[in-house]
Amino acid sequence: MSYVLGIDGGGSKTVCILMDDTHQVLGRGVAGASNYQSIGIEATLQAIQSAIQVAVDNAQNLTKPVNISAICLGLAGVSRPEDITVVKLLLNQLQNNKELPINWTLPESNIVICHDALIALVGGIGHTVGIVVAAGTGSIVFGRNHQGQTKRVGGWGYILGDEGSAYKIAIAGMQAALKSYDGREMSTSLIESFRQHFSLAIIEDLIEVIYRQNLGVKEIAALAPIVDLAAAEGDEVANNIIDDAVKELVKATSTVVDAIFSSDSVIEVVTTGSVWQGKSKIQERFAVSLIKKFPRIKVIFPRYEPAYGAGLLALRKLVGEAH
Amino acid sequence: MSYVLGIDGGGSKTVCILMDDTHQVLGRGVAGASNYQSIGIEATLQAIQSAIQVAVDNAQNLTKPVNISAICLGLAGVSRPEDITVVKLLLNQLQNNKELPINWTLPESNIVICHDALIALVGGIGHTVGIVVAAGTGSIVFGRNHQGQTKRVGGWGYILGDEGSAYKIAIAGMQAALKSYDGREMSTSLIESFRQHFSLAIIEDLIEVIYRQNLGVKEIAALAPIVDLAAAEGDEVANNIIDDAVKELVKATSTVVDAIFSSDSVIEVVTTGSVWQGKSKIQERFAVSLIKKFPRIKVIFPRYEPAYGAGLLALRKLVGEAH
Repeated sequence: MSYVLGIDGGGSKTVCILMDDTHQVLGRGVAGASNYQSIGIEATLQAIQSAIQVAVDNAQNLTKPVNISAICLGLAGVSRPEDITVVKLLLNQLQNNKELPINWTLPESNIVICHDALIALVGGIGHTVGIVVAAGTGSIVFGRNHQGQTKRVGGWGYILGDEGSAYKIAIAGMQAALKSYDGREMSTSLIESFRQHFSLAIIEDLIEVIYRQNLGVKEIAALAPIVDLAAAEGDEVANNIIDDAVKELVKATSTVVDAIFSSDSVIEVVTTGSVWQGKSKIQERFAVSLIKKFPRIKVIFPRYEPAYGAGLLALRKLVGEAH
Repeated sequence: MSYVLGIDGGGSKTVCILMDDTHQVLGRGVAGASNYQSIGIEATLQAIQSAIQVAVDNAQNLTKPVNISAICLGLAGVSRPEDITVVKLLLNQLQNNKELPINWTLPESNIVICHDALIALVGGIGHTVGIVVAAGTGSIVFGRNHQGQTKRVGGWGYILGDEGSAYKIAIAGMQAALKSYDGREMSTSLIESFRQHFSLAIIEDLIEVIYRQNLGVKEIAALAPIVDLAAAEGDEVANNIIDDAVKELVKATSTVVDAIFSSDSVIEVVTTGSVWQGKSKIQERFAVSLIKKFPRIKVIFPRYEPAYGAGLLALRKLVGEAH
């Protein structure tokens, strides 16, 4: 029996799973954030180490130390060669840590370092072919075909892109509320929703909240459900915003299909992230619109979590799968 | 002969003019920024004082100290009652300063404190009736009719609004370049323009520039001429961005017209700010589109600067004009 580690490292938490070569999950550990670009190398190292420790401790029927044959780290914001070099150094440091209840002398070829969209795709679908449409605080569409070719669309962040993300939906909601307040846009319940949410005397005071209290990207993204709810309750302005988000996500997904799939392929598209949890049937709208263009596409919610996808990617290194 | 001070205080500089009751400008002084919300009360006080000092020093044929009968301060970001209270306190401090070569024991009624859009309107048109369409780093449309009624549209800042501003044009340009690079948008010369502007190896590195170097709002707004130039040279994507900006500014202006003017009035609309200086004929496009809706509107460039408008507003306090 061989064992691998699959690690999903992001801006809010780090998940590690310990998997055997029958795809069985033996242990799972969760620790703090591990986006080294924001929190630094040392804190990232701590988080990953702690997630591994918990995952292995949880594997109760296993003799320790466990022999680890491969590892896959899927990390947010890791795509450039410089990033991969940093993560490799980080992994070296981790392997020198003799306190972890594992043995791992991994050849370079049994180490996978990739971005979080790939592990979300593989975990979400359960294998390595398909498309992931991630729409949480940010947004990105990423696909991989049978030949192993990949295509990424979006993922440019809250200033340069992230169309269809929770951040963009929330911003569009506040902008529309203020436009309506100005008399530039038809009337909308969003004015009252945002006013109540922040307990403002008048909606103009949104300026206070956003600029002077310096609301961050995540906090703003967390306002998207206000727009989603208004849309679900029939507000036309809110529904236009949701439709725009759907349009952007369909457009991005179509671009990935056109780039690496043939338009009549059977493709699974997995939707991940908070946006899809909305009450305004946003996933249904997305699926309807996408299937109109590509009738053989199937839109699904994730089958497994991204860390599981990382585990599968690590396992592939053991069997030497071509794609 | 009576004398007044007109002060235009903003985020990059403070201008003071000394004006007599025949609208003659006798002296002009420029000093640093005076947006107290960013730079603090003390620095604001210094800047205003220094601008006054220079303006009065420049008035060469005048016996010092000069008797000042009224003052108008038009300050960026000043609109809420709290802000006006702060500025009044600030003005009190200033009047206690006996080193300035002026005598001013001003009754409350001879002090005008207002936001920068009003002085831009009055300076830009040369009197107090009309509409100002300010599109610089941010954007706002502000109008005032013969009855003294005012209407503001926009001015919600770079996160919540500022449609048609240099910031929004620049952001739209970068977003379009990256969408085009993804394959989501038709090809555009903007990719190459931004790449060259920042000396990037590939356009993907825009992420580095925007997020890791933490480019500020003004620095981003300063990129708008890249989009304007591409539009002037015939790039379709860039032209769509300019057209969108025009559409937003026309919409905002129309809202002001509808709110406080009758649609067949003769109205002067003054355009202020960097956006209007572009090579893509943006003012012409704006005027054509606006005049289609309101045939008797006249779109002009500013006749005088905002500080001059502040001077005119101060003078009105002496003659007790009704509106």
